[in-house]
Amino acid sequence: MLVVMKAQATAEEVQAVCEHIEQLGFRAHALPGAQRTAIGITGNQGEVDRGNLEELPGVAEVIRVSKPYKLASREVKQEDTIVRFAGTDATIGGRNLAVVAGPCSIESREQAFAIAEQVAASGAQFFRGGAYKPRTSPYAFQGLGLEALHIMAEIRDRFGLRIITEAMDNETLDLVAEWADVIQIGARNMQNFSLLKHAGRLRKPVLLKRGMSATLDEFLMAAEYILSEGNYEVILCERGVRTFADHCRNTLDLSIVPAVQKLSHLPILVDPSHGTGKRDKVLPMARAAIAAGADGILVEVHNQPEKALSDGPQSLYPDQFARMMDEIEQIAPVVGRTLPRGIRIETAAAGAHDGFGK
Amino acid sequence: MLVVMKAQATAEEVQAVCEHIEQLGFRAHALPGAQRTAIGITGNQGEVDRGNLEELPGVAEVIRVSKPYKLASREVKQEDTIVRFAGTDATIGGRNLAVVAGPCSIESREQAFAIAEQVAASGAQFFRGGAYKPRTSPYAFQGLGLEALHIMAEIRDRFGLRIITEAMDNETLDLVAEWADVIQIGARNMQNFSLLKHAGRLRKPVLLKRGMSATLDEFLMAAEYILSEGNYEVILCERGVRTFADHCRNTLDLSIVPAVQKLSHLPILVDPSHGTGKRDKVLPMARAAIAAGADGILVEVHNQPEKALSDGPQSLYPDQFARMMDEIEQIAPVVGRTLPRGIRIETAAAGAHDGFGK
Amino acid sequence: MLVVMKAQATAEEVQAVCEHIEQLGFRAHALPGAQRTAIGITGNQGEVDRGNLEELPGVAEVIRVSKPYKLASREVKQEDTIVRFAGTDATIGGRNLAVVAGPCSIESREQAFAIAEQVAASGAQFFRGGAYKPRTSPYAFQGLGLEALHIMAEIRDRFGLRIITEAMDNETLDLVAEWADVIQIGARNMQNFSLLKHAGRLRKPVLLKRGMSATLDEFLMAAEYILSEGNYEVILCERGVRTFADHCRNTLDLSIVPAVQKLSHLPILVDPSHGTGKRDKVLPMARAAIAAGADGILVEVHNQPEKALSDGPQSLYPDQFARMMDEIEQIAPVVGRTLPRGIRIETAAAGAHDGFGK
Amino acid sequence: MLVVMKAQATAEEVQAVCEHIEQLGFRAHALPGAQRTAIGITGNQGEVDRGNLEELPGVAEVIRVSKPYKLASREVKQEDTIVRFAGTDATIGGRNLAVVAGPCSIESREQAFAIAEQVAASGAQFFRGGAYKPRTSPYAFQGLGLEALHIMAEIRDRFGLRIITEAMDNETLDLVAEWADVIQIGARNMQNFSLLKHAGRLRKPVLLKRGMSATLDEFLMAAEYILSEGNYEVILCERGVRTFADHCRNTLDLSIVPAVQKLSHLPILVDPSHGTGKRDKVLPMARAAIAAGADGILVEVHNQPEKALSDGPQSLYPDQFARMMDEIEQIAPVVGRTLPRGIRIETAAAGAHDGFGK
Repeated sequence: MLVVMKAQATAEEVQAVCEHIEQLGFRAHALPGAQRTAIGITGNQGEVDRGNLEELPGVAEVIRVSKPYKLASREVKQEDTIVRFAGTDATIGGRNLAVVAGPCSIESREQAFAIAEQVAASGAQFFRGGAYKPRTSPYAFQGLGLEALHIMAEIRDRFGLRIITEAMDNETLDLVAEWADVIQIGARNMQNFSLLKHAGRLRKPVLLKRGMSATLDEFLMAAEYILSEGNYEVILCERGVRTFADHCRNTLDLSIVPAVQKLSHLPILVDPSHGTGKRDKVLPMARAAIAAGADGILVEVHNQPEKALSDGPQSLYPDQFARMMDEIEQIAPVVGRTLPRGIRIETAAAGAHDGFGK
Repeated sequence: MLVVMKAQATAEEVQAVCEHIEQLGFRAHALPGAQRTAIGITGNQGEVDRGNLEELPGVAEVIRVSKPYKLASREVKQEDTIVRFAGTDATIGGRNLAVVAGPCSIESREQAFAIAEQVAASGAQFFRGGAYKPRTSPYAFQGLGLEALHIMAEIRDRFGLRIITEAMDNETLDLVAEWADVIQIGARNMQNFSLLKHAGRLRKPVLLKRGMSATLDEFLMAAEYILSEGNYEVILCERGVRTFADHCRNTLDLSIVPAVQKLSHLPILVDPSHGTGKRDKVLPMARAAIAAGADGILVEVHNQPEKALSDGPQSLYPDQFARMMDEIEQIAPVVGRTLPRGIRIETAAAGAHDGFGK
Repeated sequence: MLVVMKAQATAEEVQAVCEHIEQLGFRAHALPGAQRTAIGITGNQGEVDRGNLEELPGVAEVIRVSKPYKLASREVKQEDTIVRFAGTDATIGGRNLAVVAGPCSIESREQAFAIAEQVAASGAQFFRGGAYKPRTSPYAFQGLGLEALHIMAEIRDRFGLRIITEAMDNETLDLVAEWADVIQIGARNMQNFSLLKHAGRLRKPVLLKRGMSATLDEFLMAAEYILSEGNYEVILCERGVRTFADHCRNTLDLSIVPAVQKLSHLPILVDPSHGTGKRDKVLPMARAAIAAGADGILVEVHNQPEKALSDGPQSLYPDQFARMMDEIEQIAPVVGRTLPRGIRIETAAAGAHDGFGK
Repeated sequence: MLVVMKAQATAEEVQAVCEHIEQLGFRAHALPGAQRTAIGITGNQGEVDRGNLEELPGVAEVIRVSKPYKLASREVKQEDTIVRFAGTDATIGGRNLAVVAGPCSIESREQAFAIAEQVAASGAQFFRGGAYKPRTSPYAFQGLGLEALHIMAEIRDRFGLRIITEAMDNETLDLVAEWADVIQIGARNMQNFSLLKHAGRLRKPVLLKRGMSATLDEFLMAAEYILSEGNYEVILCERGVRTFADHCRNTLDLSIVPAVQKLSHLPILVDPSHGTGKRDKVLPMARAAIAAGADGILVEVHNQPEKALSDGPQSLYPDQFARMMDEIEQIAPVVGRTLPRGIRIETAAAGAHDGFGK
């Protein structure tokens, strides 16, 4: 159920409608738009009696939402969601392409800094690295944990890159939220509803990766779990699905990019590294993702992939990453986009981050 | 790596080998067999120097394990694992078929008792019911939580049924372990490695459902996460996988039953309710599962499926469940099995059910 | 569109309705049932004017058929189709289970006779063997062709077995129809519509295997191609579908058995040999198929599988086939079936086939 | 097995080696390269004795081929195959992108001419249209047959477009080969080995679409069937595969483009119309295909999609096609390609189009 306010409705009227909804035992989500505010109602098992709502001051219309997801839907919010990062001009969503790069796992301070320097030099704005690793085998490297979070916080300070890293459970979620700029929820946890709800109670952007066999509806419903708790900064990420095809580790399903953009206002990135599992397929599929209209790319880069503790075979060499940046920059204008090169820190105190932009 | 002890090795010799392994910084898992004890070594990233191990008293042989899973493998433990329940003759694994029945969700004390009475009357030994529900939508019924655990504990006392229910996260895991006899980890959490590790530290049997797109190796590796923490009572469960086929909600992959039994000593049940999603397919597929050699069946039964808060369309009516029991009882001898009807409490004095709850 | 005749309608009235339909430019298919005859109308792109039809003598009702397939549907024909073979008591469909056994390819007269003798001794009624082989590689053994058809005709004469073999194209279709009792159309040709139409113009039973990624609707529509040309003896066969699962060559989708039986009157067999691709999975899945309600089994048997020119790893040894027959015989009564052992030739002239039954 | 000739080997030496191979009972395929000629040997079930071959004049080396496909492999032919069309500068493969456009089915002369005029105006070089249609239902429109071939031949004469249309069986294959410039073999016939062999005996280019659940190896083996008969002009086409995903009709698997290009010298096109089944997904995925490195696009265009007899919902309007051409033209240089606009007829005298049809 969605309450559409009149264009001239006051903040007080919006507030009054929200309170009315909460008194009915439901949850109200005020979603300001360019022209008017809409108020999503969640928590109702069945039909909400629309009679009273329509008579409240400032209400233009009360409409039923036909999809199982509400807050993720364009029916509820028409404008694209753009996730912004305080103190910088970095964004995810909107006209600027977002590029997230870094190693699968943070293996050491030296490794992480070496890679961060190189991806920053090529113009990435976001740095990814695993602190807590979901590994198929309990005997495989499980990540450096808190130490890795500290290393990435240093990288943010040193290179001005925004930090994205994965939370594995409710315990690590709080740590990741404390140290990182974006909390990643991995494909294997896309339907870990407990984790989704906890992430929804935080006020940090969440990058939600599509599950290996998730349909579009399930993907948006997982986002809805986060949104329904009041965290509206959700970034989707296609990372390949599981099929019979065996020439790549997964089948990168790029058609979900326009499909998401039709139904939802949330931004969507593509991860061609996990999506293919093979280094020589990453560049073609990164180009294809941008050409398909994705809001950006999440890509693994390693300075010594042959020695990586995880995902070496799918990690780009830094020079391959630089070439990728050049190529997607050329494709960007065809889809009405721009590739910003590097991050601009708004309060560039101490000159610490000079020179990272072009 | 696996240390096979001589048939006549003493308990002290086994203990000494385990201590030696732990001193090397690894983890030792003593696995007694019918003839001899084997000791699994985990925690080694690479090769363990086998030289010293082979010279310790009582050691027959040190062998490398070729599969990525170790403790789940028949190479490490040849005999079938049989999960037993103290104070009763109920088992999962071994000659006796195990039947787990009950509603998708515990909706009320009345509903749960009515169904429990009927499935007990038809001879089920295990009662299932959801307290914490993983639902695709955040707006769907999420389960009664602790209240449902209390109701199921009463059902155990009243009907002598062992209780199986799902834990959604580390928080509910402890509660479920306190109140239930078997902890279920659902398909969506099959690779929630944090939850698997926590379950591995408990000493309650764990029913692990196959993920929607999990390969056999991934399934056994998920079990290995639990085993590697020292909890050796893992029960596998096939519940259908996701494919292009649309005549059922999932595609029940029965060939995984003999495939698991060849590679692993762990018992495997089949869930034809989730595996098909349609009531009229449950009975044929339950028969097929037993004929394929499964160790038992997990099936949803509801006294009023048309009013169920979840999974009504796939729940059997009690009389259909009774017929299912009759039919699988007839098939059991063809595969060298027996269907026990009802649970025998070993100390069957009047008021004997006292003390099974907490 | 379906015209249901009154129970007491005469043959002349049925004939008159058919002629009326044909005059309208459509095609009429008279389908006699236990109580009454129904007449299927095909060839209409849109709606047929029902007005006149309902007024013809003997017509009880004219109903629209809601599924895209018509002649394959139970809406059009309620009674199970039973395919009979003149001069014998062998059937496919109905109470008796049908067992089709033999090598993947006919490799030589000696090999074929040795296997035929053994499967006949165990009670098979149908012999399968490839004369024209669809092989993934153009450099693999392509079958003996016409020579193999001659060998199988001899086997029919010698052992009383009915012969099933595959046609690859319209050219071989006529040869197979001339020499065999049942024409097989393989999974790779399930949507070779030209072949289906030609097979529909013959008057020999057709065994249609499900395509590797065919939905239930597509499978029944492929059958409809054959039926719509007037050949009503179509036997369906599930042989495994392609999924991500890698523990077997294919994923045997047994739930399609009850799904087909609900929607269609056509008999359905299961092929656990191609369905698993592994000898040690064939017996469990053959039992499961019968328990799921299949009308029979199609299974590969070879006297020397290790030397087979094709599909050796999935072929049963003759003693394993004998055990399979014993086990499915025991399961048969649970699903209201009987396993006949061997074929009874009605006109047992010359005593040639004595002793093939029990 | 592959015989690599010395760079300076004469045509006579190549011929002598071929004859030697044929005398051994095998088949020789001389494949001229930029530097030297290689001779592929097919027809051998096992090992060919290489001794004699290596001693023949002009032979540099005899090497075993490790893949199941030989003639499709880059091991046998390193240079990209470029399919050329006599009398024009149109190519498939190589630097120039190929664009094939037209309606799903030829419905009438007027419809076909209207669409052909529009796609030619936007710069397409190839015209596609169905004469013989593989339809899931026997009751759906099956194509105009020979009449459609005649219409397309007129379109070639009128607009200079090269014609691509599908053959359904061996009968229509000869007709299509007579009237069209490229013979299409559809996804459902990708493993119709009889049809592949017949197409291999013709000397017309063949466009081979990937089967709905074909692996890369199976796709190249299907091409190998055509090549092994001596027809070396095979064009591959990705058209989406079948998965669980339901937001599009198929899942377009673009990563097969770089995967094919690594292993094979054959050109590969992408069909975003069948690959998505939805008009609004065609443009994004067409751009993505070019960005991934495809040799061109096969796309359905209709002047009145809402009235189309088949595949209306996935057909572009002519103005959408024009926009697609503009956008892929901009992406082309990023991947080292050029989009030629329209076809240049080499003998461009007035009335020059004479004689292209029959």
